[in-house]
Amino acid sequence: MANPFRLLTKDPAGARRGELRLPRGSVPTPTFMPVGTQAAVKGVTAAQVRETGAGIVLANTYHLALQPGAGRIQKLGGLHRFMGWSGPILTDSGGFQVFSLPKKQVSDAGVTFEFEKGGAPAQLSPERSSEIQAQLGSDIAMAFDECLEYPCSEARAAESLERTLRWERRSREAHAARGGAQLLFGIVQGSTYPHLRRRCAREIVALGFDGYAIGGVSVGEGLELLTRIVAVTAPELPEDHARYLMGVGLPEDLLAAVERGIDMFDCVIPTRYARGGTLFTVRGRIRIEHRKYRRDGYPIDTSCDCHACTTVPRAYLHHLFTVRDPLGETLASIHNLRFYQRLMERVREAIERGGFAALRDQILAEMTSTAAEER
Amino acid sequence: MANPFRLLTKDPAGARRGELRLPRGSVPTPTFMPVGTQAAVKGVTAAQVRETGAGIVLANTYHLALQPGAGRIQKLGGLHRFMGWSGPILTDSGGFQVFSLPKKQVSDAGVTFEFEKGGAPAQLSPERSSEIQAQLGSDIAMAFDECLEYPCSEARAAESLERTLRWERRSREAHAARGGAQLLFGIVQGSTYPHLRRRCAREIVALGFDGYAIGGVSVGEGLELLTRIVAVTAPELPEDHARYLMGVGLPEDLLAAVERGIDMFDCVIPTRYARGGTLFTVRGRIRIEHRKYRRDGYPIDTSCDCHACTTVPRAYLHHLFTVRDPLGETLASIHNLRFYQRLMERVREAIERGGFAALRDQILAEMTSTAAEER
Repeated sequence: MANPFRLLTKDPAGARRGELRLPRGSVPTPTFMPVGTQAAVKGVTAAQVRETGAGIVLANTYHLALQPGAGRIQKLGGLHRFMGWSGPILTDSGGFQVFSLPKKQVSDAGVTFEFEKGGAPAQLSPERSSEIQAQLGSDIAMAFDECLEYPCSEARAAESLERTLRWERRSREAHAARGGAQLLFGIVQGSTYPHLRRRCAREIVALGFDGYAIGGVSVGEGLELLTRIVAVTAPELPEDHARYLMGVGLPEDLLAAVERGIDMFDCVIPTRYARGGTLFTVRGRIRIEHRKYRRDGYPIDTSCDCHACTTVPRAYLHHLFTVRDPLGETLASIHNLRFYQRLMERVREAIERGGFAALRDQILAEMTSTAAEER
Repeated sequence: MANPFRLLTKDPAGARRGELRLPRGSVPTPTFMPVGTQAAVKGVTAAQVRETGAGIVLANTYHLALQPGAGRIQKLGGLHRFMGWSGPILTDSGGFQVFSLPKKQVSDAGVTFEFEKGGAPAQLSPERSSEIQAQLGSDIAMAFDECLEYPCSEARAAESLERTLRWERRSREAHAARGGAQLLFGIVQGSTYPHLRRRCAREIVALGFDGYAIGGVSVGEGLELLTRIVAVTAPELPEDHARYLMGVGLPEDLLAAVERGIDMFDCVIPTRYARGGTLFTVRGRIRIEHRKYRRDGYPIDTSCDCHACTTVPRAYLHHLFTVRDPLGETLASIHNLRFYQRLMERVREAIERGGFAALRDQILAEMTSTAAEER
């Protein structure tokens, strides 16, 4: 175990400014990780992702195990070489995806599911997930946990928690037995129940990981419950280790979580929204397919320095979406990714000068023009 | 009229090395123009197109008049600003597309057609095409001509030729009446009939244009007939003006045409093939979706310096096509575009040292391994 995190500053509001020191590059935190589900941020080259300011990306174990297969990626020299991304990569454990499948059988051994419809059953377990992530060669691997739906009864959450603790211990053991430079983060589950979250956090911290994640969120619980989960969990995590809130979220979610001491985020929202034509601006979201943009000569966001905003007007994006040229989704993705990176840049600067609360209020106030824009 | 072309060298084999000196940039010839039909090379940013080495791109008048409309592009500051491409742009006249429509009515006035199914009839004429291209603000506009199918009877070709001559004269007049810095190229038609091609060339040259194109090719006539058309037409064109073979073609077509004195090309083949998973290499074409590439750690073409070849292996491209990530088509397009630009770079170097014939033989011999690769 090697702690990659260094806490640099804490803001009066509670936000943390830190650094992840990884062999493939240092990443300033709070940080947002673009999601390259299938070893690609859809339609965006690795160089373009890098240009948005991203220092670390996430790739999905489940999807890559399906296609092209983790063993194949290993033989090709690992995920970094495969996808042409030389910076750090975090892989999830595959748990979240497996538990989203309609047909699955869960036992203490692991989760059995159909890889393909009608195909031979496959299994994902702490050991198998660990092996796959080692084959992929990610810089940070995640422990294998049971992911619960929302809402979820307290009895079910409590029972699941015991299994998650057993599984994470096995993840820890499988990872340790292998050795190597890959880091392993533990995950705190416990649904929406504060005492379960606290108990899980203490047990996971006692096991000891290179960083700690809060999982089982972004499943429909909403900002209020999310904030409460973070608020009760984060204080249980060691100050000197990285804290990662999985699968979150919208800009307002990120701000609420940063304030409560979160350092790392990943989410498909910027890219998924982009492909659907929804673009983030400091004044709120816009739907680029709306006909009012067909004559608009301004950039998506006049304050943005992304490749799209510095080269083409909104009317061009509108045109590309109208004629369904894939370049539209690419430029929109680049813009939204840059928007998220700029948001984190502003957040980091604010924390450094102890002004996070003021920045948060400013950003949220600016975004209130969202509603007006969206109509 | 201002001749942008300067002939630098002629190779013993007949190939010409020249330069197009345009206000937005000088373009060494022979040159290949990527096609940005709807003001975008599908899925590829203008910056990425530039990185492949392209100095000038083509955009389609017909498509842009349909969507978003030439007037709108004009109000947005012209096509260059709209699509974020600062280099020279050539626009076609829209004739080729209009004549491909199933329902159209041709009279001396122009061509009447349905813009949308069941929509109000629209008309394209020499004057209207000239106006649209002026609104787009391209650097080089093309005269409006009648495009014939292949095969085409001699009688029909002869009759059409008279109309084309009348239309091109009107294009010339409309263009001259407007003034401005935009250049206008004339087009030689005449189907596959040498005496019609020669007659058309002489008449068009007598009218006087800033450059001369050979049109009505790439309609299924094949390399042999294409070569014959170029061979009989090119000698009728003035040595000191640029010669542009429209819509051609495969690498072997380009080589045959360069040898016969052609300076400019455009074609959708590199990008269309790329999107379909067919990649050009010096050793011939490969189908990246073939399962033999699923474990292939080599770049698409080991001799290529494109963004795809220098960052990811064939197995990654294969994976992207398998999971249908649009990044696959983007990287494939970048590669094929770079392949065409490298081909033209090699051609230009060979002409400079008087070695075109040797290069042509070498390239064609290398490509013979195509067949083997493709199977």
